[in-house]
Amino acid sequence: MSEFRQNLATKEWVILSADRGKRPSDFIKDNPRRQPVPPYKDDCPFCKGNEHLTADPTLVYSEEGQWKVRVVPNKYAALQPDQDTRRACVGSFLTAHGFGIAEVVIEHPRHNLTLARMEIDDVATVLRAYRDRQQAISRNPDVNLVTIFRNHGPRAGTSLAHPHSQIIATPIVPPHVRNPWEQAVLYYDEHGHCVYCDMMREEIAQKVRIITETDRFVAYCPFAARSPFEARLYPKRHMPSFLSMQDDELVEMAGILRDLLARLYTCLDDPDYNFIIRSAAIGDEDVRYLHWYMVVIPKVSIPAGFEMGSGIYINSVAPEDSAACLRETKIECPCRGTK
Amino acid sequence: MSEFRQNLATKEWVILSADRGKRPSDFIKDNPRRQPVPPYKDDCPFCKGNEHLTADPTLVYSEEGQWKVRVVPNKYAALQPDQDTRRACVGSFLTAHGFGIAEVVIEHPRHNLTLARMEIDDVATVLRAYRDRQQAISRNPDVNLVTIFRNHGPRAGTSLAHPHSQIIATPIVPPHVRNPWEQAVLYYDEHGHCVYCDMMREEIAQKVRIITETDRFVAYCPFAARSPFEARLYPKRHMPSFLSMQDDELVEMAGILRDLLARLYTCLDDPDYNFIIRSAAIGDEDVRYLHWYMVVIPKVSIPAGFEMGSGIYINSVAPEDSAACLRETKIECPCRGTK
Repeated sequence: MSEFRQNLATKEWVILSADRGKRPSDFIKDNPRRQPVPPYKDDCPFCKGNEHLTADPTLVYSEEGQWKVRVVPNKYAALQPDQDTRRACVGSFLTAHGFGIAEVVIEHPRHNLTLARMEIDDVATVLRAYRDRQQAISRNPDVNLVTIFRNHGPRAGTSLAHPHSQIIATPIVPPHVRNPWEQAVLYYDEHGHCVYCDMMREEIAQKVRIITETDRFVAYCPFAARSPFEARLYPKRHMPSFLSMQDDELVEMAGILRDLLARLYTCLDDPDYNFIIRSAAIGDEDVRYLHWYMVVIPKVSIPAGFEMGSGIYINSVAPEDSAACLRETKIECPCRGTK
Repeated sequence: MSEFRQNLATKEWVILSADRGKRPSDFIKDNPRRQPVPPYKDDCPFCKGNEHLTADPTLVYSEEGQWKVRVVPNKYAALQPDQDTRRACVGSFLTAHGFGIAEVVIEHPRHNLTLARMEIDDVATVLRAYRDRQQAISRNPDVNLVTIFRNHGPRAGTSLAHPHSQIIATPIVPPHVRNPWEQAVLYYDEHGHCVYCDMMREEIAQKVRIITETDRFVAYCPFAARSPFEARLYPKRHMPSFLSMQDDELVEMAGILRDLLARLYTCLDDPDYNFIIRSAAIGDEDVRYLHWYMVVIPKVSIPAGFEMGSGIYINSVAPEDSAACLRETKIECPCRGTK
C-alpha cells in the first residue's frame, strides 16, 4: 500500500511506495565501482604541489605553512564576474549577460580523501570557507543568491575525484527558489512561526526519522523525502542564512555533518551524492520566515518522466526505514585510513 | 561568453554556457551501448504471445486479428485505483492514501522497435491510445491530473526494452505543475493571450530554433532550453488539454513526432530520453491561458547540485545549434528495418 505525503514547507507531494524488501545492499549493487585513487596525482590541479594550475585563490586557510583549504575561481565557470547585469529582450524573450561568481572550494590538499573520511577539524575548515566566501561574495551589490553545493561522483555530476565543493553566486533568484519562500511567508502570516522551525520541531517530536542530533543541530530523513536515504541537516536556532553561522556552530556542524556523511559512506558503500545548502537571498538574512538547511541526496534512484512531469517523486524506501538504517549504522573512526 | 535566458511562461531561468566546440558525437560517446535486441522475447510480458503475463487490458487496438497497441494496468503501480482520497494528518504533516491509476501503453507487439523507427500509422495508434485513455480516466471524479510520459533507456529510468509509455493519474495537482499555470493566468490577465500561444508564435517568427513544422504542429528547441537537444512539440491551435485532440490531428502529430524522434535517433545514435505530455488538469480543458505540449529531453547531461539547488540549468549547447543540428539531420525511411 502506498501513500501521498506533503512537504509542509513547499506543499509539494511525494508518493511513498515502499518496497519493504529493499535493503541498502540493493542500492549498492548499482554503484559505479570507484577506481582506487592515489593520495596525490601529478596532473590534478587541486593537489598539493600543483597550485600553479589554478587561478589565484580568493581564500586560503593554512596551518604550519601548509594550506588546508583553498578557494579558487572556477576555471570552467558558466558565469563571469566581469559582466554587467543589464537585461535585454530578444523579441519577447528576456536575457541577461552571464554575470556571476563561480568558485571551487578545494577541501583538502590530499587527492583521495572525502568529507566522510576527514578529521572533524578539517571539515570545520571547509564549512568556515563556505561561510566566509558567502559573506564576502554577498557584499557584491549585483549578487542576489549564493548557492553552495557538492557533487560527489559521476552520477552526481562530477568526474573530478579530488575533494571539492562549489559556490555559484547569481544576480537572479528564480521561481524554483522563490516559490517555496512565498509558501513560507503565507505560513508565517497564518501561524506566526517559521515553517522550517515548526517542521524540524515536529520531526524531533515524532523521532522516527531522526538520524543523529547534537545540542544545536539535527539530521533526519524528512517525512516527505523524495528518494531513498535523502537526509537534511538543520540548525535548531532560527537562522535564515548560512552566513550568520558562528565559529562554534561551524565546529559543531562539522561533527554532525561528518557523522551523517560517514553513515551514508558506510551504509551505502560510498555512494555518489549531491549536497546543497539552501540559504536565504542576500538581504533576507533577518527575515522571520526562512531557515537555512542542508539537503543531502544520495544518487540511488533516477527521476524519470513522471517525476519530471508532475514534480511528484516516487520514493521506494520509507524515510523511517532510511533513517533507522543510517541511525543503526556503526561508524568507527572514519577519518583513519582511506579507501 | 555566457548568458541567462528566461522561459517566458514559467519565468524560470537557464544559463547558456555554450561550448562552441561541442558536437553531437561528444554526447554519443557517453551513451550506454545498447545490446542487440531480438524481435520477440520469451519472458517479456509485453511481447506478442505473452499477453497472459499482464493484467486484463483497459484498451486494445487491433487490426486483422492482431493487436497493435495494448494498454494494461501497471503491475508495479505506485498508486492503486481501489483507495479512497481522504487526507489525514500525522502530527502537523499531511498524507493521503495512494489513490491513483497507473497504466502501461504497450506501443507495438514487437520487442525491438521504438517510436523513432515505427510506421507513422503505428505511432498514430499510440497517440490515439493516449488520448482515449486520458479521456476515459478523466471521467473518474477523483482524478485531477493525468500525466503521460515515456522513459526510453536506463538513463531515462527504464530497463525494459519493449517499446512502452506510461500514464499516471493522480488526485493531486502539485505546486510544480500549478506554479507555471499561475504565471500563465497572470500573463493572460496582463496581455490577453495564452502565453504558450505567444511563445510558440515568437519561436516561429524567430525561426532559428525550429526543427520541423507542419500545418498544425511545430517542433523546436526552446529559447530557454535546459539541456542540449531538448525539444518541444506544440499544436498551433490553442488547446489546453491533449484529450481535445481530433483524430486527424493525431495522425498529423504522429508524422511530426516520428520525424522529431527519428532525428534524435540518428543525430545522437538512439539516445536515452524522456518525453512528457504537459496537459491541463481535469476541468481546465477550456481555459484560455493553458496549452498542452510535449517536451522531449535526451539524457545527455546530468543535473547536479547547482541545478537541484537553484533550479537554474546550465546548458552547454545553444538551442540554436541543437535545432540546426536536428534540422539538418538526414533521415531516410526510419521505419524500414530495425537496429
